[in-house]
Amino acid sequence: MKAVQYQTIGELPVVADIDIPEPGPGQVRLKITAAGLCHSDWFLMGLPAEMYSYGLPLTLGHEGAGIVDKVGEGVVAVKPGDDVAVYGPWGCGRCSECAQGRENYCPFAGELGITPPGLGSPGCMAEYMIVDDVRHLVPLNGLDPVQTVSLTDAGLTPYHAIKHSLDKLPAGSTAVVIGTGGLGHVGIQILRAISGAVVIALDVNDEKLAHAREVGAHHTIISDSDAPAKIRDLTGGIGADVVFDFVGATPTLEIARQSVRIDGSIESVGIGGGVLATGFGSTPFGVSVRAPYWGSRSELMEVLELARTGQVHVTVEQYSIDEAPDAYHRLHEGKVTGRAVVVP
Amino acid sequence: MKAVQYQTIGELPVVADIDIPEPGPGQVRLKITAAGLCHSDWFLMGLPAEMYSYGLPLTLGHEGAGIVDKVGEGVVAVKPGDDVAVYGPWGCGRCSECAQGRENYCPFAGELGITPPGLGSPGCMAEYMIVDDVRHLVPLNGLDPVQTVSLTDAGLTPYHAIKHSLDKLPAGSTAVVIGTGGLGHVGIQILRAISGAVVIALDVNDEKLAHAREVGAHHTIISDSDAPAKIRDLTGGIGADVVFDFVGATPTLEIARQSVRIDGSIESVGIGGGVLATGFGSTPFGVSVRAPYWGSRSELMEVLELARTGQVHVTVEQYSIDEAPDAYHRLHEGKVTGRAVVVP
Amino acid sequence: MKAVQYQTIGELPVVADIDIPEPGPGQVRLKITAAGLCHSDWFLMGLPAEMYSYGLPLTLGHEGAGIVDKVGEGVVAVKPGDDVAVYGPWGCGRCSECAQGRENYCPFAGELGITPPGLGSPGCMAEYMIVDDVRHLVPLNGLDPVQTVSLTDAGLTPYHAIKHSLDKLPAGSTAVVIGTGGLGHVGIQILRAISGAVVIALDVNDEKLAHAREVGAHHTIISDSDAPAKIRDLTGGIGADVVFDFVGATPTLEIARQSVRIDGSIESVGIGGGVLATGFGSTPFGVSVRAPYWGSRSELMEVLELARTGQVHVTVEQYSIDEAPDAYHRLHEGKVTGRAVVVP
Amino acid sequence: MKAVQYQTIGELPVVADIDIPEPGPGQVRLKITAAGLCHSDWFLMGLPAEMYSYGLPLTLGHEGAGIVDKVGEGVVAVKPGDDVAVYGPWGCGRCSECAQGRENYCPFAGELGITPPGLGSPGCMAEYMIVDDVRHLVPLNGLDPVQTVSLTDAGLTPYHAIKHSLDKLPAGSTAVVIGTGGLGHVGIQILRAISGAVVIALDVNDEKLAHAREVGAHHTIISDSDAPAKIRDLTGGIGADVVFDFVGATPTLEIARQSVRIDGSIESVGIGGGVLATGFGSTPFGVSVRAPYWGSRSELMEVLELARTGQVHVTVEQYSIDEAPDAYHRLHEGKVTGRAVVVP
Repeated sequence: MKAVQYQTIGELPVVADIDIPEPGPGQVRLKITAAGLCHSDWFLMGLPAEMYSYGLPLTLGHEGAGIVDKVGEGVVAVKPGDDVAVYGPWGCGRCSECAQGRENYCPFAGELGITPPGLGSPGCMAEYMIVDDVRHLVPLNGLDPVQTVSLTDAGLTPYHAIKHSLDKLPAGSTAVVIGTGGLGHVGIQILRAISGAVVIALDVNDEKLAHAREVGAHHTIISDSDAPAKIRDLTGGIGADVVFDFVGATPTLEIARQSVRIDGSIESVGIGGGVLATGFGSTPFGVSVRAPYWGSRSELMEVLELARTGQVHVTVEQYSIDEAPDAYHRLHEGKVTGRAVVVP
Repeated sequence: MKAVQYQTIGELPVVADIDIPEPGPGQVRLKITAAGLCHSDWFLMGLPAEMYSYGLPLTLGHEGAGIVDKVGEGVVAVKPGDDVAVYGPWGCGRCSECAQGRENYCPFAGELGITPPGLGSPGCMAEYMIVDDVRHLVPLNGLDPVQTVSLTDAGLTPYHAIKHSLDKLPAGSTAVVIGTGGLGHVGIQILRAISGAVVIALDVNDEKLAHAREVGAHHTIISDSDAPAKIRDLTGGIGADVVFDFVGATPTLEIARQSVRIDGSIESVGIGGGVLATGFGSTPFGVSVRAPYWGSRSELMEVLELARTGQVHVTVEQYSIDEAPDAYHRLHEGKVTGRAVVVP
Repeated sequence: MKAVQYQTIGELPVVADIDIPEPGPGQVRLKITAAGLCHSDWFLMGLPAEMYSYGLPLTLGHEGAGIVDKVGEGVVAVKPGDDVAVYGPWGCGRCSECAQGRENYCPFAGELGITPPGLGSPGCMAEYMIVDDVRHLVPLNGLDPVQTVSLTDAGLTPYHAIKHSLDKLPAGSTAVVIGTGGLGHVGIQILRAISGAVVIALDVNDEKLAHAREVGAHHTIISDSDAPAKIRDLTGGIGADVVFDFVGATPTLEIARQSVRIDGSIESVGIGGGVLATGFGSTPFGVSVRAPYWGSRSELMEVLELARTGQVHVTVEQYSIDEAPDAYHRLHEGKVTGRAVVVP
Repeated sequence: MKAVQYQTIGELPVVADIDIPEPGPGQVRLKITAAGLCHSDWFLMGLPAEMYSYGLPLTLGHEGAGIVDKVGEGVVAVKPGDDVAVYGPWGCGRCSECAQGRENYCPFAGELGITPPGLGSPGCMAEYMIVDDVRHLVPLNGLDPVQTVSLTDAGLTPYHAIKHSLDKLPAGSTAVVIGTGGLGHVGIQILRAISGAVVIALDVNDEKLAHAREVGAHHTIISDSDAPAKIRDLTGGIGADVVFDFVGATPTLEIARQSVRIDGSIESVGIGGGVLATGFGSTPFGVSVRAPYWGSRSELMEVLELARTGQVHVTVEQYSIDEAPDAYHRLHEGKVTGRAVVVP
């Protein structure tokens, strides 16, 4: 079968021809119907050899949807033909976090060598993939896989960050979204759908800001050093209740620091290389700063329901599996609007 | 000054001519700009003499907005000319609940003889009123008093009930609103504004259901004994996550009981005379049943912000103070769409 | 093997000799090390034929601990020799509630015919039992099964009820525990361990109240019609923040109703046949009334940790499997102090 | 009257003789019964002139208790003779935060020039003081002012931090307390009183660790670079659920960073000059880092109740007002065990 693989440190991914895998006991094989590209794929492909720990060759893709194709010994909860999305942050399944479906924070996955698909385990960007346990399959129940596959990361990640800070976003509150691309443009829609917050979106040019307004931002601001003052103006001098930084670079975190209100929150979602000096004298009193990671199983179910009711719509560019390397290139160049999806 | 008063048990309220009151130490006098009528006024006017405990004559009105007119000794936080709304559920101001602005649940108000305006203390339906403490004044900051005065009860009460159950209303959840009148039509809008829930509204005729759809209900159902089955159909057999009963009569609470899901909630807001047998064998496991009361000070600020951003709009019928008795009559007949407001 | 079975409606359970069961795909066989008796076993054995729906013969026991003995096809997460406790409230494993480990509130278990061990499925009171999925096994990691097996219900159920109302139990609050037997005496210890509440325990005689004080109750009161007044006295007239009724009969729920404060909670845990009229005119404003059911997977892990740190200790009477019918008789007579456990 | 004042930048405080102040409208004069010394007094006295913004001379003391002595115009809620504690973090009283009693996070206090007693306004370390509003007085109801005055900061501050992270401290969890002095030794007791967490205390010598064990720490560790490994050992490799850093210096925050678990929290309470680089690559995923400030009005009521029930006991050294400068010296030298209190 065809699989998009990262084979050589520092080179582009390639389309390889490999054997169709067989599901072991308790495992499930999917025929992939859609697989999403993500900036974090570029993050790992950008690591130097001494920091790269995901194994080679690595079939890419941690956003996946498919049809159950074959089940391993002992699997009874799904059957061939079921349409599903893959819950990506695989954990041990046995600890307290996993028992709550919060496998994204499993403290044992690392030591047990458990890795998500496309981030250590063979990923979704292939004709078939193996999912290690039925609990990592969430029913799609007829949702279009191409339109919804990106929600498994680009929807789930902002949804999780927003739910974590939802208590700080009652009616009359203000949320700032920095970065309106893959995750950010979904985050804006989620904020509009589940909170009463006024949404201020920041990005680097007018075209991106126009897109942000289309998907629901109330206000948009160019993300430069004047942005904090403008956010203060829009909030009666108080600042934003919560800042979601989907870039996570040093300059954007600095905007977050200067824009957040006393007792507010900063969710640093993007892995843009920045960290934020947190504490007395730097961040306002009571402000929580946090780098969340992906989301929980029930949150994935919830964000999929937002697609079903039409409250969230992912802007998608569609590619064949052979076009995947080019699509990665476009993504890296910042040319993708919304999210790129490979359909094998 | 003119004041709408309940003077005789069992008779209609009248417009009386009484002295303009003087603010005592720590008190504030408002020149009223708008005062709302409420079904609960009828509730107290319907009580027999032996159960009536609010004093006579009673100036009606617990929804009020006005301009600060004169301040008593020691008042420094407001000044004449400030436009404000009245926070109605007055408490002792000193206990733990009051220290959190949850004066609606002050355990000492009763024994201390502290009563809300229009529900024991002289109310808002007059040319002037006395507010006992500046903490009971919330800034309007230019909001139209006629359009927003009803939010002090008809907005605050559903907002408080919804916030209490908001954890059970994530994306993909279902909220049922029984009764789409004064409180219900605002409740529907609040649900749409601050939660991801699908909203199912129930009422007794098609006209009311059409209004419910106009203000945001996704689905509408006639509130008869078939309603629970229809709600089950719309929720994949599971039932509603939360039922808000703005009627609170025996038949509507029975609909609530049959419609709520395992681990859901019933907020019995209306005082329609019903109670619900709660526990094993009657309500599903894990279901919370609760009769909330009004709301907190910060919640009132939040719901006013929903008016400012246009997310909540009260349908208002406007009357002069002389027309108030007739307006009460219309309200009792069920002829008021939305909320009736007196403008002195 | 020997199994304690309910075989004939209206008769006592008997010790039967049945085949050792074989684990199917995904299932696990345990060699039982301890199994707890519960009042709810008597509840089902007291049902008339037309209301009994658990199947006959029924191997009893929904509190179980054991050693993994044999695993079915596809099982990789546990291996023979592991010591485990059984998480009893089995759900579908696929819905949102189950994805959070809250299988006790799975809305699909009923229609799918999924039943807990001892409450439909063959139970723990036998030499061996089948557990349907590894997710229903929680590691004991060396905890004494006889001392801890009761925590799977008599610990988990109060722990879940207490955690649900924990926000209402800050420092300075008051919790009332009605019924200090199997669940109640554990509930008192949990309240002392995880909340700052003052604990008032109610029961029917001085001996039981003395035991309640031994396990941590600050105050004890005979549970008669004078109890509410005494609770008011102990709480400065306010009433209790939360009442946990481990009896759930009409008179105890009436005590709960009269004792709870405005904005408090009543958790009606016992299945003593009572329901509580909830709403305006009956329960104080803001009071939540709720019949919880068992608890979640992560909560079971948490309550087991309380045993490991010595913060919770179950008073246990130990019996052989042949003595089980007599032990049930003693339980029914109210002669068991704490909890009865069968050790095969 | 005598007042302990900071008069000259860089010099020690002195005992001055000043006029007894008169309460203005809405204000209250207290006759002080106890006033606490705090490290943060040293913090402000250590500021160079260009950073010092609290005014000179400044009567010190933000922990105060007293008897109502005289009330200003319009004050009706307290009367001479009432025994009270002072709630120190004064806010505007009108915004949403203040309406919830969370004046510690009032966003307007700064621009309005509202400052706490002893931190801008004349403080508690005098024979009399002025409190600006009755809402800043919490009833003591007979509690010993000398034993409890420190709870207004040294109790309230850790209580607030602990309550904020209480959801992460269920049964089986681990809390680390760095710094077991004035705030820390109260924090340990609060953790034991209101959470099920195992408490690990860190400090710089064995004497302090012995005191930590006396007040309830389960484990104690010298706070050096080996501490994180020892914390990992005590937590099965996972790390601590929450770290409370009552020092807040660079080395202690580094211990916090290395000791906290995935999805845990760091509450950086002390103002020891450190900040913590927060985000991807520095702090584990999901970890919230936050510098809380003081606490809310209702939290002060709650922590006082812990003293009433004997669950929290402050170790106190008592001084006369003339000894206050010496007491500050001892505090600075690290020679005070627990908390120093001046009794005028």
